[in-house]
Amino acid sequence: MKKYQEMNRNELLEEKASLEAEFGKIKEMGLSLDMSRGKPGADQLDLAMDMMDVLDSKSLLKSENGIDLRNYGILDGIPEAKQLIAEMVGTKPENVIVYGNSSLNIMYDQIARAEIFGICGSMPWSRLEKVKFLCPVPGYDRHFAITEAFGIEMVNIPMTEEGPDMDLVEQYVNNDPAVKGIWCVPKYSNPQGIVYSDETVRRFAALTPAAEDFRIFWDNAYAVHHLYEEETEILNILEECEKAGHPDMVFQFCSTSKVSFPGAGIAAISASAANLEDIKKRLTIQTIGHDKINQLRHVKYFKNMDGIRTHMKKQADLIRPKFELVEKVLAEEIAPRGIGSWISPKGGYFISFEALDGCAKEIVAKCKEAGVVLTGAGAPFPYKKDPKDSVIRIAPTYPSREELGEAVRVFAVVVRLVTVEKLLAE
Amino acid sequence: MKKYQEMNRNELLEEKASLEAEFGKIKEMGLSLDMSRGKPGADQLDLAMDMMDVLDSKSLLKSENGIDLRNYGILDGIPEAKQLIAEMVGTKPENVIVYGNSSLNIMYDQIARAEIFGICGSMPWSRLEKVKFLCPVPGYDRHFAITEAFGIEMVNIPMTEEGPDMDLVEQYVNNDPAVKGIWCVPKYSNPQGIVYSDETVRRFAALTPAAEDFRIFWDNAYAVHHLYEEETEILNILEECEKAGHPDMVFQFCSTSKVSFPGAGIAAISASAANLEDIKKRLTIQTIGHDKINQLRHVKYFKNMDGIRTHMKKQADLIRPKFELVEKVLAEEIAPRGIGSWISPKGGYFISFEALDGCAKEIVAKCKEAGVVLTGAGAPFPYKKDPKDSVIRIAPTYPSREELGEAVRVFAVVVRLVTVEKLLAE
Repeated sequence: MKKYQEMNRNELLEEKASLEAEFGKIKEMGLSLDMSRGKPGADQLDLAMDMMDVLDSKSLLKSENGIDLRNYGILDGIPEAKQLIAEMVGTKPENVIVYGNSSLNIMYDQIARAEIFGICGSMPWSRLEKVKFLCPVPGYDRHFAITEAFGIEMVNIPMTEEGPDMDLVEQYVNNDPAVKGIWCVPKYSNPQGIVYSDETVRRFAALTPAAEDFRIFWDNAYAVHHLYEEETEILNILEECEKAGHPDMVFQFCSTSKVSFPGAGIAAISASAANLEDIKKRLTIQTIGHDKINQLRHVKYFKNMDGIRTHMKKQADLIRPKFELVEKVLAEEIAPRGIGSWISPKGGYFISFEALDGCAKEIVAKCKEAGVVLTGAGAPFPYKKDPKDSVIRIAPTYPSREELGEAVRVFAVVVRLVTVEKLLAE
Repeated sequence: MKKYQEMNRNELLEEKASLEAEFGKIKEMGLSLDMSRGKPGADQLDLAMDMMDVLDSKSLLKSENGIDLRNYGILDGIPEAKQLIAEMVGTKPENVIVYGNSSLNIMYDQIARAEIFGICGSMPWSRLEKVKFLCPVPGYDRHFAITEAFGIEMVNIPMTEEGPDMDLVEQYVNNDPAVKGIWCVPKYSNPQGIVYSDETVRRFAALTPAAEDFRIFWDNAYAVHHLYEEETEILNILEECEKAGHPDMVFQFCSTSKVSFPGAGIAAISASAANLEDIKKRLTIQTIGHDKINQLRHVKYFKNMDGIRTHMKKQADLIRPKFELVEKVLAEEIAPRGIGSWISPKGGYFISFEALDGCAKEIVAKCKEAGVVLTGAGAPFPYKKDPKDSVIRIAPTYPSREELGEAVRVFAVVVRLVTVEKLLAE
């Protein structure tokens, strides 16, 4: 198979004509397919249905410390749920606050409180001339939406296969007091599936921020979301920060949204004692407490990390073939033609496709024309601006395998067509 | 029985000696009783245990519009939960957003968003020199804690038996653009159990605020919490505001915390379309959605307003005798001596006792000495400052009837003792 860049004009024109014919046929099929959403498939959710049986009207709804979980009380989570979350992200129960159903909401609250009240006694961000956040790109659109909403200036940090470009991170964090945070998805990053190397985590822990209230927003969203038998582990950021003498420098977030049920899971923050005290001082004004019965439900169902592991293996068995299907088509149709690349993820929810520069928007638009919905081009970047217009996030989990196969084949045709057009226009 | 104010010095001294002896005996009993907490008793919670059975692993977890409730999606609540909440507070489903488990959290968020982003396009409160809130007193301590945390100046508004002193409310709201809100518990107010009269509600709706972003924070916490067969109703504030040409002037809050389970209930806001749009614009950044399965669980269990009504009657049967017990002791021991008064509540969770001026703190302290915990004196006031030091909130629901009887008898002795001491010191 010839690389497109090596084709002469005539060959490209021929290829274009043939692809246009194919694209025309696809459009006639009137497809309606969706590879845009990082949502579990219904089959994954079916796996957790037994969770609906672990509590019933005969259950003793008490926590191990004797608290009646049906009543008010307990701001920071029931002890056994703290234990479960601690095991899940590899920290200690005393470093955990278990919240309600949404880790995104916890992150939003952390930023909102920093803006209004400041962190651990420092100046509220809303009173500062400028606040900046580092944003490894491509990254998670909903992170960027939060910082954008608060008028925080976002600075792109390129990702490498080891994590964010740490030279750049150090340069910003250690010198610019306006830099107050960085968004990280350290394991199976959204959308590239990159796992931060030990070196990267250690360099994070060794940061010497110019701002005393700089925090790493460590969204460990895919801590247990392995696709393969081999479970990739990352260094424990809380532990590393403590060792490096910066115990307060990190907020770690996680949830069971893609373990049990999105929207009906439990979410948590883990951080140093000083950070947790600071949070609880405000949290006690904000709410009387979270849903303790749902916390108990999760503990009764999963029991411990082994329970979570077993459950996630079943999920992996369902979604691994989907990831492999996407990669197979890309490997057959795209890679040999030299018109796109991706990193093969070992976990998480996405494949990040990198087209030739200037092609992403057009690919997404043409896919839509053909009835295949993709995440908007630019979405994985602050202000939705992909500087090279090249990244497309593919979410393989939600469609059925059949739909996914169809969708990714359409995608491949569109990538080829758009690239040919691009090359011809040059 | 002679009124204390009519006793001469010798009679007071005699009374004091006898009460001191009695108080001494009580202390020796080493009691440990609690009338401080507005929490349902375990027997009330037992009534809702069947809710734990309405969903199981065989249930179809879909909403009536076909959405899979186990997955992401739906920011503003499932349709059938909106319907249930609408019936509960007498509004329309399209005016409702169903949230997570805590109406207090919704109120906090409304204030936080007003501070950071402003309401419906108006200037964020954090950028204003001064923001004031009107606080009908006595009121709910957690309302006041929110406004205090944000540095909002709180202005006491005396309560009458018809609701807040509306002359004063009108004077402030219609003339002072710094007044941005008022905290209201319109039905069975916390702590007095006062029900706002139709006249009061209409005067609220007819306000012509100096601030365009003034909002009534209408915490309809006890909408269905009747103690007696006769259900007191209040006028529908959303409807009245709309009729008066001020549809956007009110946020109404409610929850099932004291209907199903505190902490595991569902909470909601109801407001005009313009307000809901404004809220959703921000909410979509803040969270992906709330616990839809728990929303479904509530709908399946209560079904409709009749289901809620039937359930609340059972709760009333459990707590009405507790309220009556407290009132009986007060009527026998306190009223005839002219040393305290209260309004007889027909619903809600509290009895607000008014001692002679300058006695509340001492009564609470002496009760504690005798092993009876009461809500801190001052708690029902902004900044915890009761200007007359006379109000004590009694919460009869949580202790058993036996414990409550004991506690309130101790309370009566202490009220007498403290009042005698007070009169002797004058």
